[in-house]
Amino acid sequence: MEIRTYPSRYLEKAVQEFAKLPGIGQKTAFRLVLHLLKQNNSEISGFTSALSELKEHIRICKRCHNLSDSDICNICSNASRNSRLVCVVESFKEVMAIENTMRFNGLYHVLGGLISPMDGIGPSELNISSLEKRIQEEEVNEVIMALSTTMEGETTGLYLFRKLSAFNANITTLARGVSVGDHLEYTDELTLGQSIINRVAYKG
Amino acid sequence: MEIRTYPSRYLEKAVQEFAKLPGIGQKTAFRLVLHLLKQNNSEISGFTSALSELKEHIRICKRCHNLSDSDICNICSNASRNSRLVCVVESFKEVMAIENTMRFNGLYHVLGGLISPMDGIGPSELNISSLEKRIQEEEVNEVIMALSTTMEGETTGLYLFRKLSAFNANITTLARGVSVGDHLEYTDELTLGQSIINRVAYKG
Repeated sequence: MEIRTYPSRYLEKAVQEFAKLPGIGQKTAFRLVLHLLKQNNSEISGFTSALSELKEHIRICKRCHNLSDSDICNICSNASRNSRLVCVVESFKEVMAIENTMRFNGLYHVLGGLISPMDGIGPSELNISSLEKRIQEEEVNEVIMALSTTMEGETTGLYLFRKLSAFNANITTLARGVSVGDHLEYTDELTLGQSIINRVAYKG
Repeated sequence: MEIRTYPSRYLEKAVQEFAKLPGIGQKTAFRLVLHLLKQNNSEISGFTSALSELKEHIRICKRCHNLSDSDICNICSNASRNSRLVCVVESFKEVMAIENTMRFNGLYHVLGGLISPMDGIGPSELNISSLEKRIQEEEVNEVIMALSTTMEGETTGLYLFRKLSAFNANITTLARGVSVGDHLEYTDELTLGQSIINRVAYKG
């Protein structure tokens, strides 16, 4: 049902703004606005100021292009991390995913996308020249390519592999294999095939 | 999966604020914030100012207690509406629902709740004395009780019926019957029974 009659245009405006968000319909927007209406002023201003400050304060790290609160992000400025190991990712979302594993102690380099001729994104649109500069200037030992196993991810990986072979750094990629918790009978055959070829010594 | 590592505390703050909303988990909150992050400043400030203005400008109509942008709401101040016909409802949500039907040309009176001893809500918590005052001063002809068919709605209806019988106004209630589009075999027996008792002349 469409809501046609609002008792207040401020209420209507707020609902319309919420309904612009992805996956939020008019009914849900109305429910969210009613919730906010019941909150006191300080809670609403907490909400709105968090959103205004977001756009105002957020930066891109000048070294790795990750999202950051300052010119150089927390990861790049952490002296206990191995700056000679660089993990190349598509966006800050992959940085978050890998950081969440708490298994990686190197730095990142955010490409800002993947090569996709269909979308008109070529290598020059990505943060590749800054990656080459980093590999040279920061004497990087190893570049891990942590890209999605999609057409775009594979194309970008191949391009980078050719481009970065000129440097004195090992180029590695994420292990492909059966996911933890996967049932073998449902694993796709490409993954299962690669996991047999790249089998590793059993660690009981 | 819980998100543990944010690249920016402003991002984290914004996600936490969104995740306070009902039905919005951390993942959805993150998706919504990323969407806002991609918008330009004017769109974000449109969103935040709509929310700040909401609480700041919204009023309660002094006549009918509906939500309003001014001291007297649009419905009460509309001279083409019948001010001697008053529809009593629980909250502004029922006003919106009835206005949406575009079948009612009278005014409303918002009780601000229903009598519910379980929740400690008695008649004195509701806008009943102002309703009595209106019936007298505005020479109301008919009071329609449009309350939910729940225990609380029926209790409130009975209370009001007794209270308002002292006045010189007809007291009516919404017709109970089979909903438009309902299959008879699935209609509950109370509703079906009432709809037979209250049967009306067939208008072909």
